[in-house]
Amino acid sequence: MTIAVILAGGAGTRFWPASRVHRPKQLLPLTGGAPLLVETIERVMPLVGGWDHIMVASGAAVAEPTRELLPALPEANLLVEPVARNTAPCIGWAAARVARKNPDEVMMVLPSDHHVRDVPAFRAALARAVEAAHAGVIVTIGIVPTRPDTGYGYLELAPGDGLVREVLRFVEKPDRERAERFVAGGQHLWNGGMFVFRARDMLDAIREHMPALADGLAAFDVAASAGDEHRAVEQGFGDLPALSIDHGVMEHLDRIAVVPVDFGWSDVGSWEAAWELAHRDDDGNVVHEGAVYVDARRNHVVDARSPGSPRKIVALVGVEDLVVVETDDALLVVPRERCQEVRRVVEALRTRGEPERT
Amino acid sequence: MTIAVILAGGAGTRFWPASRVHRPKQLLPLTGGAPLLVETIERVMPLVGGWDHIMVASGAAVAEPTRELLPALPEANLLVEPVARNTAPCIGWAAARVARKNPDEVMMVLPSDHHVRDVPAFRAALARAVEAAHAGVIVTIGIVPTRPDTGYGYLELAPGDGLVREVLRFVEKPDRERAERFVAGGQHLWNGGMFVFRARDMLDAIREHMPALADGLAAFDVAASAGDEHRAVEQGFGDLPALSIDHGVMEHLDRIAVVPVDFGWSDVGSWEAAWELAHRDDDGNVVHEGAVYVDARRNHVVDARSPGSPRKIVALVGVEDLVVVETDDALLVVPRERCQEVRRVVEALRTRGEPERT
Repeated sequence: MTIAVILAGGAGTRFWPASRVHRPKQLLPLTGGAPLLVETIERVMPLVGGWDHIMVASGAAVAEPTRELLPALPEANLLVEPVARNTAPCIGWAAARVARKNPDEVMMVLPSDHHVRDVPAFRAALARAVEAAHAGVIVTIGIVPTRPDTGYGYLELAPGDGLVREVLRFVEKPDRERAERFVAGGQHLWNGGMFVFRARDMLDAIREHMPALADGLAAFDVAASAGDEHRAVEQGFGDLPALSIDHGVMEHLDRIAVVPVDFGWSDVGSWEAAWELAHRDDDGNVVHEGAVYVDARRNHVVDARSPGSPRKIVALVGVEDLVVVETDDALLVVPRERCQEVRRVVEALRTRGEPERT
Repeated sequence: MTIAVILAGGAGTRFWPASRVHRPKQLLPLTGGAPLLVETIERVMPLVGGWDHIMVASGAAVAEPTRELLPALPEANLLVEPVARNTAPCIGWAAARVARKNPDEVMMVLPSDHHVRDVPAFRAALARAVEAAHAGVIVTIGIVPTRPDTGYGYLELAPGDGLVREVLRFVEKPDRERAERFVAGGQHLWNGGMFVFRARDMLDAIREHMPALADGLAAFDVAASAGDEHRAVEQGFGDLPALSIDHGVMEHLDRIAVVPVDFGWSDVGSWEAAWELAHRDDDGNVVHEGAVYVDARRNHVVDARSPGSPRKIVALVGVEDLVVVETDDALLVVPRERCQEVRRVVEALRTRGEPERT
């Protein structure tokens, strides 16, 4: 069976006040169902067969709420990064842990805060990638772009055809004009940050392209054999090179396979995206158990209060295109198209000495 | 010393969700300060000299929260109407209670849910009315109209001049055209529902114009002399004629004095009125300890949660002219100019079986 490594260390306040330092996006039910992390695990569970094949990489600030959200996750499978060092150290650590038992094990690395509409297509693509990875190649998942988005990195396909292709190169976030050419040309895919590989292949690639990281991971192995991995990670993780797996490893590889897919993917990067993905009524309002909409259209009510909070009526009368977010200690009202300005609220709170609200 | 009778039996959901069946308008700090009932009592206190000269008429549904709000009010001075019977029975009952001790005592009857900007002018007008009432006339306070409001009754002045005038007749709520003539003509005042009289004079007027009410009050007197008033009121109040003091008594009197005044009066009849009266910042937003306004103008945030609730940040970004009201179990967002449509929310809640939220 495969191992799924879910990257859930992200922090951020783009969805303030729903997202907080201690409750980042992946812990929120942004699209109206379960928290994105839970949806991610449910999506992948049939491919791995059980909780013992799930690893969740988390940051120190969110480890505790992550544990609470995932009571079935074995404690040993929660990798808590003492400090954030981007994705390469964390993926390397996960690969090292897996390799100690079986270096031929195939691992899937998946972001925890994305949305997938067509789950069967997602699973079929991952199964295909796992198959390819067994042959010793590092595989990525490439998403057929549906618009010239300048917020994503792109993968350029090498000539060829078939269900598994080869990546010619990684392309950084393009400008608008290039993005339009990419979409029109049909030779570029979005880099959705999903990778599939055997543990040994990733560790070999790290040894070649990030030797300092490889040394650090080797030190963790030594400590682990002495039953002392926790202390070694606490002390050493902060010294590992802070690079993304893309920059540190993937872009340097001679050969990367890619499974091109179109399964209705979204990185849920804004309230606009969350609203589009959520279940809405005929007036475009997000369906919400406690909401009463009177002559109101295309509104998005989000109840991000603590679990078990008493039911609350949220009544919107005569308003349109608003996002209304309630938490235990904050309430936000903003037109959806101005959500990016919410960072000014976060700044104001930090300025006036209330960082605990951010 | 004079006795003040504060009419605080009103119920209503015009200010839902802030106002509720068990927490009507007079118990709310609608203009940003203390609850309107508390402001009313503070306004009148120097004229009466102490809590023993304050009587509060309350309904069964709001008696308990009224007690909690006014811990200094002697229990005997809280007149709890077992059922709502409009204002005449309640004012008559208060007059009967006062007359048992001293029929020559002057009483001021005042609504509990209005706002007065110029408090010294208010007190001066009431003092003048008290003086006139000592001579044996029933006196009302007439407010110089500042706009052709069709929501109020008017008092038509008899010819004459002086600080105390005579009322020629009561005029029901006029249409727009008549209201404009009233304001232009200078012979009409708003009826603000404030009356000043000796207990004996009101009881005489009730005996003449509402004999059934007089009989009922006499029965209360008999019961009171036997120490049994409470039971008599519980059993008999519902049988008293449900009329306003205007319709039942005032409109039939041959002579009513009036003190014309202009003390910045408002009946705080809408969120629009409450917003105009509240303390606002330079952008027109109502000043609110927990609010963060970012590029937001003329908004009204109301925190009507239980006393002692933890501080909550209310962030409004890029919105204008909204009313945002939060209570423990409800949240309302509505453009101020559409507040009258909030009753549709109340109807929806009753229809779907949640009357306890109304």
